[in-house]
Amino acid sequence: MKKHWKLDPDRYFDPDPTQRRVARELYAEVADLPLVCPHGHVNPQLFADEDAAFGSPADLFIIPDHYVFRMLYSQGMPMEDLGVGRKDGGSVETDHRKIWQRFADHFYLFRGTPSGAWLMQELYEVFGVHQKLASDTAQEIYDQIEAKLALPGFRPRQLFERFNIEVLCTTDAASDTLAAHQAIRDSSWSGRVLPTFRPDAVVNLTAPGWRESLHALGEVIDREVTSYQELVRALEERRAFFKSMGARATDHAALTAYTGELSAADAEAIFARALRGTVTVEDAQAFTGHMLMEMARMSIEDGLVMQLHVGSYRNHNPEIFARFGADMGADIPITSEFTRNLHPLLAKYGNDPRLSLILFTLDEDTYARELAPLAGHYPVIKIGPPWWFHDSLNGMRRYFERVMETAGIYNTAGFNDDTRAFPSIPARHDVWRRAGANWVASLVVRGVIDLADAREMVQALAYGLAKQAYHLDA
Amino acid sequence: MKKHWKLDPDRYFDPDPTQRRVARELYAEVADLPLVCPHGHVNPQLFADEDAAFGSPADLFIIPDHYVFRMLYSQGMPMEDLGVGRKDGGSVETDHRKIWQRFADHFYLFRGTPSGAWLMQELYEVFGVHQKLASDTAQEIYDQIEAKLALPGFRPRQLFERFNIEVLCTTDAASDTLAAHQAIRDSSWSGRVLPTFRPDAVVNLTAPGWRESLHALGEVIDREVTSYQELVRALEERRAFFKSMGARATDHAALTAYTGELSAADAEAIFARALRGTVTVEDAQAFTGHMLMEMARMSIEDGLVMQLHVGSYRNHNPEIFARFGADMGADIPITSEFTRNLHPLLAKYGNDPRLSLILFTLDEDTYARELAPLAGHYPVIKIGPPWWFHDSLNGMRRYFERVMETAGIYNTAGFNDDTRAFPSIPARHDVWRRAGANWVASLVVRGVIDLADAREMVQALAYGLAKQAYHLDA
Amino acid sequence: MKKHWKLDPDRYFDPDPTQRRVARELYAEVADLPLVCPHGHVNPQLFADEDAAFGSPADLFIIPDHYVFRMLYSQGMPMEDLGVGRKDGGSVETDHRKIWQRFADHFYLFRGTPSGAWLMQELYEVFGVHQKLASDTAQEIYDQIEAKLALPGFRPRQLFERFNIEVLCTTDAASDTLAAHQAIRDSSWSGRVLPTFRPDAVVNLTAPGWRESLHALGEVIDREVTSYQELVRALEERRAFFKSMGARATDHAALTAYTGELSAADAEAIFARALRGTVTVEDAQAFTGHMLMEMARMSIEDGLVMQLHVGSYRNHNPEIFARFGADMGADIPITSEFTRNLHPLLAKYGNDPRLSLILFTLDEDTYARELAPLAGHYPVIKIGPPWWFHDSLNGMRRYFERVMETAGIYNTAGFNDDTRAFPSIPARHDVWRRAGANWVASLVVRGVIDLADAREMVQALAYGLAKQAYHLDA
Repeated sequence: MKKHWKLDPDRYFDPDPTQRRVARELYAEVADLPLVCPHGHVNPQLFADEDAAFGSPADLFIIPDHYVFRMLYSQGMPMEDLGVGRKDGGSVETDHRKIWQRFADHFYLFRGTPSGAWLMQELYEVFGVHQKLASDTAQEIYDQIEAKLALPGFRPRQLFERFNIEVLCTTDAASDTLAAHQAIRDSSWSGRVLPTFRPDAVVNLTAPGWRESLHALGEVIDREVTSYQELVRALEERRAFFKSMGARATDHAALTAYTGELSAADAEAIFARALRGTVTVEDAQAFTGHMLMEMARMSIEDGLVMQLHVGSYRNHNPEIFARFGADMGADIPITSEFTRNLHPLLAKYGNDPRLSLILFTLDEDTYARELAPLAGHYPVIKIGPPWWFHDSLNGMRRYFERVMETAGIYNTAGFNDDTRAFPSIPARHDVWRRAGANWVASLVVRGVIDLADAREMVQALAYGLAKQAYHLDA
Repeated sequence: MKKHWKLDPDRYFDPDPTQRRVARELYAEVADLPLVCPHGHVNPQLFADEDAAFGSPADLFIIPDHYVFRMLYSQGMPMEDLGVGRKDGGSVETDHRKIWQRFADHFYLFRGTPSGAWLMQELYEVFGVHQKLASDTAQEIYDQIEAKLALPGFRPRQLFERFNIEVLCTTDAASDTLAAHQAIRDSSWSGRVLPTFRPDAVVNLTAPGWRESLHALGEVIDREVTSYQELVRALEERRAFFKSMGARATDHAALTAYTGELSAADAEAIFARALRGTVTVEDAQAFTGHMLMEMARMSIEDGLVMQLHVGSYRNHNPEIFARFGADMGADIPITSEFTRNLHPLLAKYGNDPRLSLILFTLDEDTYARELAPLAGHYPVIKIGPPWWFHDSLNGMRRYFERVMETAGIYNTAGFNDDTRAFPSIPARHDVWRRAGANWVASLVVRGVIDLADAREMVQALAYGLAKQAYHLDA
Repeated sequence: MKKHWKLDPDRYFDPDPTQRRVARELYAEVADLPLVCPHGHVNPQLFADEDAAFGSPADLFIIPDHYVFRMLYSQGMPMEDLGVGRKDGGSVETDHRKIWQRFADHFYLFRGTPSGAWLMQELYEVFGVHQKLASDTAQEIYDQIEAKLALPGFRPRQLFERFNIEVLCTTDAASDTLAAHQAIRDSSWSGRVLPTFRPDAVVNLTAPGWRESLHALGEVIDREVTSYQELVRALEERRAFFKSMGARATDHAALTAYTGELSAADAEAIFARALRGTVTVEDAQAFTGHMLMEMARMSIEDGLVMQLHVGSYRNHNPEIFARFGADMGADIPITSEFTRNLHPLLAKYGNDPRLSLILFTLDEDTYARELAPLAGHYPVIKIGPPWWFHDSLNGMRRYFERVMETAGIYNTAGFNDDTRAFPSIPARHDVWRRAGANWVASLVVRGVIDLADAREMVQALAYGLAKQAYHLDA
């Protein structure tokens, strides 16, 4: 039996008829606004070549998406069976129809999850699949997607336009030549794709492959980086280059929000130990904390917005890391702390109108306790949208309810989709716009705000705040 | 004036008519399913003897139930006045009617609490009490319950059957002979009551009475336990015996989730210090963390499911502990941490398909931040239901909303009632089934899932997940 | 265009018609009860002189209110532009109409915030302003408020009566002569204004201005305080004086809830170091923890209720502190811990019926995890209402949902407005009464309690609990 279904036009709204009516009305005002995508991980190469394609349905939906295969792995399915490539080149499933079938057989695992919701909406709206994905519909749906992907309208640039994306920011290593971005600029295509400067690989001294990343940085600036001082100079140069290529922001991921200034001598000594291979965990934490201070200084000088993503214990599962590498669904959040950790940075730069610092957390307890009070005082701080595991309907509800009363919406940074799964972008923005409209509607029906204010708020949440926070209006 | 009341057939459902209609429909499908009780503290002796009885209403509802007397104590009522036995044999109230009256006089304290809800439903449905418990109805209700308890239908085995309990797992010390369980097996009664292996009393070197517990363990295996190596062997033996008696699981309570392997020599040295009475708090923590590793190893070998309950600061009130002993309502939760603490265990055993590890927390902040991401990746992990203080309507709502989006329901372990209050079991499962139906209904009315999925989900939550997680289908 | 609006008579109630009907009915029973204000920061001088006045609209709403100017500052407005006085006497805006205009221009920032809700209700109900505050209405509204403030009915004593305040407790330094309170007692005015004893300035050895505060304490007792022993004696004397002046409670703010007894010698040594200016952070923390033990002892002796406010990192922004001083919107919460930190105090005094300890937290994670279990066991503990950043609609909802199931409402302390903004008091109590009625109604419509219980609960929440907890019935 084939199961048909219909995407609920009122999905994600509260069931109360009064609130739903207001939410629907507010949502209608923002549903078709262009998508502003100031932070994400889409590969710019997709747009560098006008003939770039997405590959098979399994290439598109499963093999590169750790949101998806982590769930199947958690229920005992070997990642090899899903076609995820092994570092040792060991054999993995190459029959994409089999991979797809396994996915469909276990699609019930995603019930009630954001991944499930995005996938269903993407299948429905982008690929016109109106059956439920399940064991018995798997191959037919594969056929449908495969056929669509072969059409010219399903090339990345065409989907970019169909999705009404106003601007898409990628995330790029400090050593990246931005060749793909240059190719986009050189092409006749008018899509706006901008780079973002992410130097973690050279700043975090214990990052896997640090030495190689440092070497790559040396390559791109045509001189080896052999000291802390040279690293700083190299980063300044690269920032200038990224800025010249349209970058609006930098991005920094750190285990904790620790900041603190080192003397130049201490910074040099730590860097030297890193080069010698004798760096300690404490060294690395101190260095990261110091470099965040440096990054704030540079942002004040060059005007790039500074993003800080905190609290992910990367590569928690050593067996998976050894076999498959990083970003394999084994990153687990930890407790975060901002009030004390950011104090050095804020004491030095927190009142400087030239700095804009957007904070992201995986520890929702910091929303009401730390982030909202910080953003409700310091002019430099904006709070980024719910991140990663919290980019979900309940995650957004918690964010609205815990952040907004103290920070106000105007100290937040709107939405970003933070995804490498390009075709999921409209679905992700749609969840946010619906959740936002529903939350604002909940204020209207409780008499907290009136409809005129509500209209301005949903516009800001869906579109304006992201543009402002990332300086994308210019 | 006698106050009559009626148990609301739609209790615990959201008031929105659309959601309520769906919730009611979903609940109806699971309301009468057999009760699966994979973890609890009911005394198996109640079922060993076909004539066992519950005693007086105060014996049943008040004197042994720390959920109940803690609340009365918090408002200044001496525990002696409630008949709670003193360690020094000092006099306590023995008039059970007076105890009941005091309870009834203060029953208003339980308004809006889960204890209040369970008690009201238990009185209403099990004992047919249709008046509100209050000062003026106390004695009449006492009469009613007392009369019921004298009937044959109110013996434990009969209630077990009336409650439609499919299986009830008890919690038993490592040194327990399981004589009561043997008696049940030897009897003609068909009720399924299974033991669970809980070695905390000998594994936690600073547990009150550790030496006595160790001695008792020696007694039951017919040789003294004088070394760490002997302890490990003794535990392996006892696990085998428990398994032969039908046990499906072990249970471990620890202050923190800390795990970490000791060398055999270090483990021996700490154990020796414990025997000499010179063990330190750090020793004990290291030993507990090591024994959790050992327990995981043994579970891989013998197939027993491993439960870990984390985060209760036991016996927080020294005066109460000195006067009345343990489990007197003075256990207070602390912050918990799983991502780092479980890393050693998961790095070693986290990908082993033979291990099944069910995690329980008293720190709800770990739901979305740590437990759901861990369970959504590691094949060995399942998340246990909301525990203890969180086994409540709001506790369940928070659990559903914080756990399920990231972990999915299929990485959770269904419900367990975790109670020593046998007649409260149906009420506790009923709260869960209603809360589950209401939560699933909230997904339906928001267009997140369809009704077909919803039906499978409520079945799983109410019945299937617990059976699977505890290997109770075999 | 002038925008008129209307205060929603059903504001803050859930939109579901059934729940709203019950909430409305319950609210109606408590809406007009007298206001009990057991903790706040209103200046008693306002009532000492029958002709005291509030100054200009900017004096009343903006310049002294860090809830308000922090939000404007967070969006880049210099505090000087809002008339906030500089410590160095540097020039700040003195044109109150300009200040008001700036506030109105940015009033949209307060959408969805409690400050916004209080301000709107205050303008509407106290000052009869029925237009929305915005750029184009600013000056007209200024005129309206200014005119009202010139009327006799808008003097503090008259508003006190119009607000139906039954009792208002202020917060006063240990060294305060309570001259204003004496003047109120000496006057013919019958308003009940009581002092509260807050010794933080002399007990926290690292408080800014500690030496000056200690000197002031010496002045008021007519002898210098040169030792720990003399400090204790001085505090005992001052408590006795405060009590004689009607005080019901003491109040203690600490960075953490740490408690622990020092030997007299250690306490003397630390105090001596403080006098010499060589006190360390650790010294100060140990001393604060010790003094909390002493305060509990004194409360047992003199019967004053003990309030403990925990978890604010004061003066987080050094530049703002240097320029403007304390209480400038730059206090940021930190993680708090009660279970371990309060153990010494509770082990010694937790069962003493003479002690009443009211706990306040800025870390909502402690509600369900620590505070509710502690209050649900220890007879001395009551939980204070949601504090500061959490004194909001969502903050209250979280408080009800996380605290009440475990603690029961009768282990809480009702509401307090905690404000220095006198005319906002009715609005603040109104939010609480509505939020309370709505929460109790949510229990009724879910069949958790019946209407008779609900009526008693809203009465307790709105009025009775605060009177009991603060011994204000006598």
